[in-house]
Amino acid sequence: MKQKILKESIDLFDAKGFKETSIQDIVDKIGVTKGTFYYYFDSKQEVLRDIHLAYLEGLLEEQQVIYKDNQSTYKDKLFKVIYLINSKIETKGKDARIVFREMRHLNENHVNQIKQKRKEFRIIFEQILDEGKKAEEFKDNIRTDILAFAILGMLNRNYYWFKPDGEISDYELSELYMEMILSGINKD
Amino acid sequence: MKQKILKESIDLFDAKGFKETSIQDIVDKIGVTKGTFYYYFDSKQEVLRDIHLAYLEGLLEEQQVIYKDNQSTYKDKLFKVIYLINSKIETKGKDARIVFREMRHLNENHVNQIKQKRKEFRIIFEQILDEGKKAEEFKDNIRTDILAFAILGMLNRNYYWFKPDGEISDYELSELYMEMILSGINKD
Repeated sequence: MKQKILKESIDLFDAKGFKETSIQDIVDKIGVTKGTFYYYFDSKQEVLRDIHLAYLEGLLEEQQVIYKDNQSTYKDKLFKVIYLINSKIETKGKDARIVFREMRHLNENHVNQIKQKRKEFRIIFEQILDEGKKAEEFKDNIRTDILAFAILGMLNRNYYWFKPDGEISDYELSELYMEMILSGINKD
Repeated sequence: MKQKILKESIDLFDAKGFKETSIQDIVDKIGVTKGTFYYYFDSKQEVLRDIHLAYLEGLLEEQQVIYKDNQSTYKDKLFKVIYLINSKIETKGKDARIVFREMRHLNENHVNQIKQKRKEFRIIFEQILDEGKKAEEFKDNIRTDILAFAILGMLNRNYYWFKPDGEISDYELSELYMEMILSGINKD
């Protein structure tokens, strides 16, 4: 039932917005009483927190697999993490949109939990750049801390404009980004 | 008086948030009546719209000067626009934070006005990349439309993490971005 509440809430939050969705809307959609809802969640904010956590923990787990793969070059790892994020626009579009749009509705405690998860993701991303620099795959004068903010910032904005069913796929978008990040746009 | 209302509203919105600031708070701070406020503005949303417009029109004007300068290379123009955006974090920090945080509180009509201004900025940015490509300063296989979204996305996120009074200045940050965009991070 907990998973069902989460799933139906994702659909409602995505369609109507978090603020405009009531607990009554959620329980009506599932066909249970408010009592059932309150058995699993203290508030609508808690549902939103759980959607955020599930999304970010999923990303972190997949990032760990990529990070720990000893067969890959650091360039491969960088590409795979970029594609991991871009591919979610298609496969987890609703969850992603809620995570990016509705963060402001989390309560303060929850925000700190979520920020912690986002920070974990950024730190691992920075480590991939750092280790790639030590392995001499990346230039030795790069500021990996700033690059991590910059590249993740760029990727996080894709949710606002990228249409995965358009002319370019999420994989091709990741390749275009990778090409710019690795080789730049300078002609000479 | 209109400018005074805008200025004090910026201070209040930045300190307390748009939603938490009432028209009463604004007129109390200036020492006038609500009647004075309603002489200049129909609503608090209209003040927010004017803050957005003033900020974006200022950026657009400065971008035009950079774009039209025939003495500059396209690389110079690209750098100047990147620095233009980054420098606003320091010189127009409050306005910028309001523009990035409170856009969701604009009413629908106003949102479309603002989106139009943002789009104008993006289109000129893309033109700089396009013309630089034709002038053979940038590689001829780049997707300038996607690069415009990507680079502006990266810059727009700086408001969330960049501290202009920290270890790195807004100018140095712009140089770091420029270096990555032009030459990439690939060692070979």
